[in-house]
Amino acid sequence: MLPYLAEFLGTALLVLLGDGCCCNVSLNKSGQKGAGTVQTGIGWGLAVMVPACIFGAASGASFNPALTISLAAIGKFPWAQVPGYIVAQMLGGFVGAIIVYIAFKDHFDATDDGATKRGVFCTGPSIPNMGRNIFQEALATFVLVFALLGFGNVAGAAGSGVSFFFVWGIIAACGMCLGGLTGYAMNPARDLGPRIAHAILPIKDKADSNFKYGLIVPVFGPIIGGLVAAFLFAAIPW
Amino acid sequence: MLPYLAEFLGTALLVLLGDGCCCNVSLNKSGQKGAGTVQTGIGWGLAVMVPACIFGAASGASFNPALTISLAAIGKFPWAQVPGYIVAQMLGGFVGAIIVYIAFKDHFDATDDGATKRGVFCTGPSIPNMGRNIFQEALATFVLVFALLGFGNVAGAAGSGVSFFFVWGIIAACGMCLGGLTGYAMNPARDLGPRIAHAILPIKDKADSNFKYGLIVPVFGPIIGGLVAAFLFAAIPW
Amino acid sequence: MLPYLAEFLGTALLVLLGDGCCCNVSLNKSGQKGAGTVQTGIGWGLAVMVPACIFGAASGASFNPALTISLAAIGKFPWAQVPGYIVAQMLGGFVGAIIVYIAFKDHFDATDDGATKRGVFCTGPSIPNMGRNIFQEALATFVLVFALLGFGNVAGAAGSGVSFFFVWGIIAACGMCLGGLTGYAMNPARDLGPRIAHAILPIKDKADSNFKYGLIVPVFGPIIGGLVAAFLFAAIPW
Amino acid sequence: MLPYLAEFLGTALLVLLGDGCCCNVSLNKSGQKGAGTVQTGIGWGLAVMVPACIFGAASGASFNPALTISLAAIGKFPWAQVPGYIVAQMLGGFVGAIIVYIAFKDHFDATDDGATKRGVFCTGPSIPNMGRNIFQEALATFVLVFALLGFGNVAGAAGSGVSFFFVWGIIAACGMCLGGLTGYAMNPARDLGPRIAHAILPIKDKADSNFKYGLIVPVFGPIIGGLVAAFLFAAIPW
Repeated sequence: MLPYLAEFLGTALLVLLGDGCCCNVSLNKSGQKGAGTVQTGIGWGLAVMVPACIFGAASGASFNPALTISLAAIGKFPWAQVPGYIVAQMLGGFVGAIIVYIAFKDHFDATDDGATKRGVFCTGPSIPNMGRNIFQEALATFVLVFALLGFGNVAGAAGSGVSFFFVWGIIAACGMCLGGLTGYAMNPARDLGPRIAHAILPIKDKADSNFKYGLIVPVFGPIIGGLVAAFLFAAIPW
Repeated sequence: MLPYLAEFLGTALLVLLGDGCCCNVSLNKSGQKGAGTVQTGIGWGLAVMVPACIFGAASGASFNPALTISLAAIGKFPWAQVPGYIVAQMLGGFVGAIIVYIAFKDHFDATDDGATKRGVFCTGPSIPNMGRNIFQEALATFVLVFALLGFGNVAGAAGSGVSFFFVWGIIAACGMCLGGLTGYAMNPARDLGPRIAHAILPIKDKADSNFKYGLIVPVFGPIIGGLVAAFLFAAIPW
Repeated sequence: MLPYLAEFLGTALLVLLGDGCCCNVSLNKSGQKGAGTVQTGIGWGLAVMVPACIFGAASGASFNPALTISLAAIGKFPWAQVPGYIVAQMLGGFVGAIIVYIAFKDHFDATDDGATKRGVFCTGPSIPNMGRNIFQEALATFVLVFALLGFGNVAGAAGSGVSFFFVWGIIAACGMCLGGLTGYAMNPARDLGPRIAHAILPIKDKADSNFKYGLIVPVFGPIIGGLVAAFLFAAIPW
Repeated sequence: MLPYLAEFLGTALLVLLGDGCCCNVSLNKSGQKGAGTVQTGIGWGLAVMVPACIFGAASGASFNPALTISLAAIGKFPWAQVPGYIVAQMLGGFVGAIIVYIAFKDHFDATDDGATKRGVFCTGPSIPNMGRNIFQEALATFVLVFALLGFGNVAGAAGSGVSFFFVWGIIAACGMCLGGLTGYAMNPARDLGPRIAHAILPIKDKADSNFKYGLIVPVFGPIIGGLVAAFLFAAIPW
């Protein structure tokens, strides 16, 4: 049971910190409103790195159905555990978002714009274009999965703890370099879990949860990108 | 005596750098006024990391009554040393704040707003709401204590020095992701020590020290959050 | 073949992330427009560090004709492989830029200013002055190559993975400290590859690709600076 | 001769990058003008870390007369080498500043304000007050020297290369937390060397080099602070 529990808790912590970072810089009356994307880039990197450190030994710290599926596709993760991992990850994303809402409840109430409030839960495109948005999410996730696999090539990094700073680096890189396109979901659990929470929670004056986008782009984009990365990585004669 | 001395000096250095960072970006005529929360997020992380490196081997580098109590509660720190540690930490926080005041005396004099001047010593809520503020502080401290315990799961990090960068990471994460709520005290010594200094020091045109808030939220919030984190961590069948 | 493939893929990833970072903060309607040079400084550092981690063991992770030539000049890289490396690097820079264009196509269309659009592909001087611009590029590349060679002096860094964070550090340092001069190309493949892509791609309302500058300054400046660094480093009686 | 050469080259590189960072964010027409103190804080940290990595094994990477004297005072550096080190460091600071001037010559010409142009060479107080300014410089240097000595307490950091990131951390911490007071010289070679260059160079419309301040505060402040830190550190019964 430990790996599933670890995936659940880790994804919840990831979303608590990551969506918390979005609330922190976006919601009215927050003491850090307007901090900008340097802060969200660094913050999301830490939001993934911290639970990865804690739960890496217990579950491998995937926290991401697209990553879990991609690893399974090239034989680096047992298919039998995939469904349980995905359920744990989705549940974690959902619960993390609920906790964020409770913590920032007064700030949600102080914020009028529904799109801003949805935007701290889940991602959306800066220029809507379904086909290109899928490509954009796939591209960011390609980089993520290819790099995570590639970090295994660094001798000594796993044994010194440095590998977890590479995790920070790749998340910050994807955000700072490609995040302005679709908000770099790169992870269905990080996007769909909180989106469902957004749909269910009694948020004041909330906007539509935009499942038309959310069930397609941040789900299939990451899975496609992750699979391409995994197969390309496996095909390289290292 | 070394561990107590280390806790005293380490907490003083932590507050000197951390409250110094707040003065640096908030007080009038400072050469770095207006630098914003990216700087305070990075700066507070370093303010904790630097003394942790120096004093980690001597005392464990707790610098935080909520952390010390939480560790004791799960048998990872001897109860007999808890009172001495807390006294040393509180005294360190107080002395660190005095030194900050002496260094920035002319800048305090150049700043009119009393709330700004109090805000560089100790924390306050962005939206006052006693119950939720306690939850917010408890939540941030939960993340802090849970992560600090979890970093022990990373093989090799302690032996390479990387673990101290994890300390930076978790403080920066708590600040950048949850800091806009109550200013992330997460530590009674970091908040109450400087608050007492604020009450005693002859600061020009100073505001009330707000002990009504300061004796409750940044004291009991962190202790509650830390204890929950410690017990949850201990309950997981790693 | 692996080293050449690695140089190609690594340089493509470098440009994808690095030029992506420029698009992210510069093009209209990007969700991160206006993030500024703290983000590009950190981002470009990660854009080099991430492929260096992945491909370091396979090819040495040069990704840069000026670096490859400089290493060969002091006997640290076989001359026989230099032409193949340079072709792979130039091709990688070209392909990386094509992918950036596809990903940000709608944002290019939403941006009117041709100089801004060229500026995300390749560099230009903040004050045009051919002679001094060559010196500026040579200086930044001197620092880059001298530091990369010097990092080999740090005992243990290669074996712990920390050396790749030094790579981040030197790129971020060159950008944050000297980048305002000519945009710190420091690498013909990073500049000329994307410049050729800019010339070929059907970008709306595009500016001249400025090969008069691009074939001189960001090509010969880096090669001169790199060679001086390599010979100086080799001359020091370590 | 190698240690002296290393101190000279290392200090020159430190000032080239550090003063370059100041030019980069302060001089007119620089592509990174206005980037702010997050960039200078990170940049100065890297400006010290990079030469420390390169020259640490050759000379100990002091680059700072106040540090060299403080180490000698507690028996951690031979007094016989102190004069040579200081000469090499001062010369390095001077030469580094000359190179910065050559690189940014056109940007100096494009900048009218003499105080801004002096400010990229050497430090000055945000609120002039000779006595307190000495205390402020002493305090920052106390933290610097105490932390550098204390980092030796971290088991494994020296052998993994992580200790150089601690160097980055302490410089960034001093800058981000205390830098708004006097500009955190903390080092006579970093301040007086470039100040002499400023006095000699044919800078257009330059301001007075302010030796009345520069010969006192950024020289004696750092030496006093460093000595107090060294003796306190040596007095602690580690």
